[in-house]
Amino acid sequence: MPLEADIAAMAKDKNFAAMTVLLSDGTPMTHVMWVHADDEHLLINTEVDRAKFKALQRDPRVTVTVIDRNNPYHYAEVRGRVADSVTGPEARADIDMLSQKYNGNDYPESAIGTERVIVKIAPDRQRIFGA
Amino acid sequence: MPLEADIAAMAKDKNFAAMTVLLSDGTPMTHVMWVHADDEHLLINTEVDRAKFKALQRDPRVTVTVIDRNNPYHYAEVRGRVADSVTGPEARADIDMLSQKYNGNDYPESAIGTERVIVKIAPDRQRIFGA
Repeated sequence: MPLEADIAAMAKDKNFAAMTVLLSDGTPMTHVMWVHADDEHLLINTEVDRAKFKALQRDPRVTVTVIDRNNPYHYAEVRGRVADSVTGPEARADIDMLSQKYNGNDYPESAIGTERVIVKIAPDRQRIFGA
Repeated sequence: MPLEADIAAMAKDKNFAAMTVLLSDGTPMTHVMWVHADDEHLLINTEVDRAKFKALQRDPRVTVTVIDRNNPYHYAEVRGRVADSVTGPEARADIDMLSQKYNGNDYPESAIGTERVIVKIAPDRQRIFGA
């Protein structure tokens, strides 16, 4: 199932997402994240040692809710799973791109503890509310 | 564990929350919701026939992320469980209070399909990000 174009547009805009992953006992854990999209996936960028990435390696199910920062009644819920994850120079460049999008500058090297990773999320179910 | 005062204040303010419940197969489902708090609980108001309420009757675990509408880097994640749910006149009055808080008017009777219910959420773990 490709990502719906309207949801991709919300993710490419300067909106934030609530990303929920499952801890080992199945409890949901949520973080507010930068988000982006390609033509098929929602894209999140994190680090390989973060609890959220480790959770996704255990259980690839993830729910990402992209919220219109100008109208919180307008949001997209995507329930999906990790289709791929990419480390290396591509992930390092990607976090600069995200930092430019949200803050207008590159991501500080000093803020990277381990290694950045792009998480590509394929939708299983997707819905826009309040459109 | 009582709700932290700083998180209660965020929930009493005009902020929205991403509420995640677990579907029967354990998949997380998220909605953006109005939120409020008393001295011990986060408070959500929904209807008794909604999928999210039925999910909470099956599995009381719920994660509520209250996002500062003026600064999405500032948010509170509360992982907890349903401690109590209240229907009847108290829940009907509560949705008017929430509607007044967010929109400045009472909640339209015509928008109620079944019966309103207040869900009281007791924290198991709570954390503020970007404070």
